[in-house]
Amino acid sequence: MEGNYSSVLLKNVVGELTRLPGIGQKTALRLALHLLKQSPEIAAALGETIIKLRSEIKYCTICNNISDRDICDVCTNPKRDQTTLCIVEDIRDMLAIENTAQFKGVYHILGGIISPVEGIGPSDLSIAPIVDKVDKGNFKEIIMALPATVEGDTTNFYLYKMLKQFNVNISIIARGIPVGDELDYTDEITLGRSILMRQPYQGIKG
Amino acid sequence: MEGNYSSVLLKNVVGELTRLPGIGQKTALRLALHLLKQSPEIAAALGETIIKLRSEIKYCTICNNISDRDICDVCTNPKRDQTTLCIVEDIRDMLAIENTAQFKGVYHILGGIISPVEGIGPSDLSIAPIVDKVDKGNFKEIIMALPATVEGDTTNFYLYKMLKQFNVNISIIARGIPVGDELDYTDEITLGRSILMRQPYQGIKG
Repeated sequence: MEGNYSSVLLKNVVGELTRLPGIGQKTALRLALHLLKQSPEIAAALGETIIKLRSEIKYCTICNNISDRDICDVCTNPKRDQTTLCIVEDIRDMLAIENTAQFKGVYHILGGIISPVEGIGPSDLSIAPIVDKVDKGNFKEIIMALPATVEGDTTNFYLYKMLKQFNVNISIIARGIPVGDELDYTDEITLGRSILMRQPYQGIKG
Repeated sequence: MEGNYSSVLLKNVVGELTRLPGIGQKTALRLALHLLKQSPEIAAALGETIIKLRSEIKYCTICNNISDRDICDVCTNPKRDQTTLCIVEDIRDMLAIENTAQFKGVYHILGGIISPVEGIGPSDLSIAPIVDKVDKGNFKEIIMALPATVEGDTTNFYLYKMLKQFNVNISIIARGIPVGDELDYTDEITLGRSILMRQPYQGIKG
């Protein structure tokens, strides 16, 4: 579906919406027509928050997290453990970990992972600041929480090489069978790893 | 995923985006983070076109089509056949027909179809203006292009009752097997109708 939208205003919105990932012409048109049915305030609120987001957002100078200030809420929070550093690929992964409420340390957002296929090398990522941070800081543990992929493994190994010179524990998040999954539906590599990385049974569920 | 987005700006955009149909928290976050990676101009263009769409759009006073002017491009186009009127449920259906390039008449957009379940009666729809238009106008044919559903059929019958008093041909778009489909994958009702509504073979494909 393209071309005649009978309105330049409509055509413009559809055009801008289709620049977004996963939104094609049909979805864009559906969203635009939905907006037309809403009050002008709702459409204005959406438009204005989008403009404001991109023009006013800042990146935390310590961890690269998005923030409304120069230093983000996590880094300034006195209740967070400043001696435990969790390295993640991007902001979404950080938010996912935050939502588990299982981690009380601080983060460092790499901005990607090493991927020769996509031409992303260590120098394209925020790795030097980590080394500097660990060198000058007082960290007890570095947790690598990167994707369980070849690229993630490569990045883990590179980080390990850079950080093993320091007196700090380096750990990696556990890989194994997702909670709730059956063994026979789990792929062989995951199942194999979950056997190799077996842990002492603590007598508690989950 | 909810709660802490580490940025009020981000939280606001996610909140506004999730008001849109089919967009949940995860998709909204993905879209917002995508916008952050784009140039400020792209985010501004999206925001501004949305605001402009809702505040400046008009509805054609003749056919209810969305338009940048009081009368839409279809109704003002001298090349369109002003004696053939196609009745559609909404703007999306009109755009779908326009994209087939098979119809050169004009439209009337009902704004819905009769649905007792949803409490939509004839008086909620733009039916009186059609009767008025056909009464005062010079139409040769009225094509009912409504959904092939019970509600569509009900609306077709109601429109027929209102319009049969006038000296005008009333037709309905064909129902049958979708082009490219196999007979044994077609549901029985559609297949039955396609037999009942069989047409003289014209010796051409499609």
